[in-house]
Amino acid sequence: MINKNYLNLKDSYLFSNIANRVKEFKEKNPEKEIIRLGIGDVTLPLVPVVVEAMQRAVLEMGDKETFRGYGEEQGYAFLRQAVCSYYAAKGVTLSETEVFISDGAKSDLGNILDIFSTDNTVLIPDPVYPVYVDTNIMAGRKIIYADGNEENDFLPMPDRSVNADIIYLCSPNNPTGAVYSKQQLEAWVSYALEQDAVILFDSAYESFIRDQSLPSSIYQVDGARKCAIEFCSFSKTAGFTGTRCGYTVITHDLIRENVALSKLWLRRQTTKFNGVPYIVQRGAEAALSDEGLRQIRKNIDYYMQNAQIIADTLRELGIWFVGGENSPYIWLKCPSDMSSWEFFDHLLNNFGIVGTPGAGFGANGEGFFRLSAFGNRENIQKAMAKLKAGFC
Amino acid sequence: MINKNYLNLKDSYLFSNIANRVKEFKEKNPEKEIIRLGIGDVTLPLVPVVVEAMQRAVLEMGDKETFRGYGEEQGYAFLRQAVCSYYAAKGVTLSETEVFISDGAKSDLGNILDIFSTDNTVLIPDPVYPVYVDTNIMAGRKIIYADGNEENDFLPMPDRSVNADIIYLCSPNNPTGAVYSKQQLEAWVSYALEQDAVILFDSAYESFIRDQSLPSSIYQVDGARKCAIEFCSFSKTAGFTGTRCGYTVITHDLIRENVALSKLWLRRQTTKFNGVPYIVQRGAEAALSDEGLRQIRKNIDYYMQNAQIIADTLRELGIWFVGGENSPYIWLKCPSDMSSWEFFDHLLNNFGIVGTPGAGFGANGEGFFRLSAFGNRENIQKAMAKLKAGFC
Repeated sequence: MINKNYLNLKDSYLFSNIANRVKEFKEKNPEKEIIRLGIGDVTLPLVPVVVEAMQRAVLEMGDKETFRGYGEEQGYAFLRQAVCSYYAAKGVTLSETEVFISDGAKSDLGNILDIFSTDNTVLIPDPVYPVYVDTNIMAGRKIIYADGNEENDFLPMPDRSVNADIIYLCSPNNPTGAVYSKQQLEAWVSYALEQDAVILFDSAYESFIRDQSLPSSIYQVDGARKCAIEFCSFSKTAGFTGTRCGYTVITHDLIRENVALSKLWLRRQTTKFNGVPYIVQRGAEAALSDEGLRQIRKNIDYYMQNAQIIADTLRELGIWFVGGENSPYIWLKCPSDMSSWEFFDHLLNNFGIVGTPGAGFGANGEGFFRLSAFGNRENIQKAMAKLKAGFC
Repeated sequence: MINKNYLNLKDSYLFSNIANRVKEFKEKNPEKEIIRLGIGDVTLPLVPVVVEAMQRAVLEMGDKETFRGYGEEQGYAFLRQAVCSYYAAKGVTLSETEVFISDGAKSDLGNILDIFSTDNTVLIPDPVYPVYVDTNIMAGRKIIYADGNEENDFLPMPDRSVNADIIYLCSPNNPTGAVYSKQQLEAWVSYALEQDAVILFDSAYESFIRDQSLPSSIYQVDGARKCAIEFCSFSKTAGFTGTRCGYTVITHDLIRENVALSKLWLRRQTTKFNGVPYIVQRGAEAALSDEGLRQIRKNIDYYMQNAQIIADTLRELGIWFVGGENSPYIWLKCPSDMSSWEFFDHLLNNFGIVGTPGAGFGANGEGFFRLSAFGNRENIQKAMAKLKAGFC
């Protein structure tokens, strides 16, 4: 009756565990301040152009003349065109029929698996965003891992002795903040083409890339149109974690067994999904306008300055880390050989700082720890001052 | 590599076929007026309390003090509580942890299948909303049908010689508009309990029920808490087809193989979904307020008066039909033994009326036809006047 693969899932989701430990700490120490550098949620409000666009859209929905019911199947053309323009600015040419608007990259990353056989072998970097693993456990697929570690700066590269049908890549990476170079992505694309595999490329953090030599889309790499699906989101780019909008790109050149995967995905989405609110699509469109991009870049700058404050502190303290330069995440090696949950408790109990234990992101995350730059400046400065004082 | 079950799907989705025929007709007859009594989309705008609530929520999202990132996993408590109150008014007691907010019943009806084994046999009424069939074809499940027909007024009843693990019921039914009585639903619940099956009860059209003796929730039937999942939506209730919000109820008493299905669904949703926009959840909450219910009932009354105009016309013309009394859909028998696509072309070519061919909803829909009451009054009156003149 039930899908027994679910019984193979680990019992609890990472962030619920953290929430429970924090709750317990608060109950025992009601007077102590807690600074959250853990969960990857944004804190700055929606930018003015987005707010204005959504206000207009709400009014349209309340007026008989401008009311909209079911929207276009792949998302409104105005938003798909805006996404195409956003890609054009990166030197990537997409047709608007290659863009699928969704309620977020997380949904699409899980749901895309519907169109693939459950017999496929998936290759997943370790450590990584846990939903890649969990969604494949749910479907009973064979999972193999590409090891990220201190030696490769948490940027695992293809191993030609390994066969895979589906390959997950996340760059800038969640949780490590590490970003693949163009040359590295070229190696992944040629490996995928050799294997006839499909790369699921999660670019949710692309807007944090500062170094213009680093690719912010897999389609900046030749050959990717024939082997990659790209997932992106307004969540981190425009502060849409609570507003919900993302998009998935499947090029018409991505064909397997004589079937265009874009056609399968369209069928999946038209059968099991009914689109994103018109109001939200207008907000997302505004975020990608010239003025919108200016406004959201200011927010991203704010987070990236936070990241720099954290990175500078870790450097001072002599703690090894990656990330933080082209990503809102900093991935550090726990000092004194602490396990990542030991370090979690250490930071919480001694400094009131909540971070994310690396072990929650895979076996190779053990002994590592994620800090996030999404908090507010004052808290991050306070947290870093505490760390400096405590570690000296 | 690909999920080959997708290749077993019929080539095109019903409403795309209709759209193509209408497009062709318009190209050939650019001067002719077309009246759409086909697709099941609402036409009245969002009611004022919903618009006001969403305007406030948009402003909150633009203010640092009131901004919200990721929401509560099952949906905000304020909305789950509002849903519980809505059910309480029907005499159904639910805990707010039994309510899961989603972006619509269509998504949940498709995604719920994740938590069930693909070895299950599913029992689906014929005719019915096509996504029940398509989502199970995608998963490769064995599908058997419960025949709706003229004899049973398109309300098929359980056949104890048939075994099923998952049973779909849709009442008021899409496309037929037929509504199960309490006694009939009791029979389905006892059949499901005997079989240890789970009923997936689609109540998306419950707010159109006028006859207070008819159940508007499966949970009004004793025993349903142990065998049924209910899917409902703001789409038709509050005109949210383009605003996207629904909810699924899984009671804590629904246990199979010692596992609470509510736990599996929570795991599915927290892994492959990230919630509904805060703005939209505030709109949905407002729709369920006392004033909201008053305002949306006015809209439903408008559609139901449309339904009555259609029903009266069909009666005058001596055309057999069900529905239209507690549902916005009228399901008629095509006159002169026409097939349902023949009748589609007949209505389109002779009267400029677009309806929905019954054959699109299953084999038993052949020879039948769906009209929808969601259009505007003047168009429906005009269409009915044309029919009366043409059929006399």
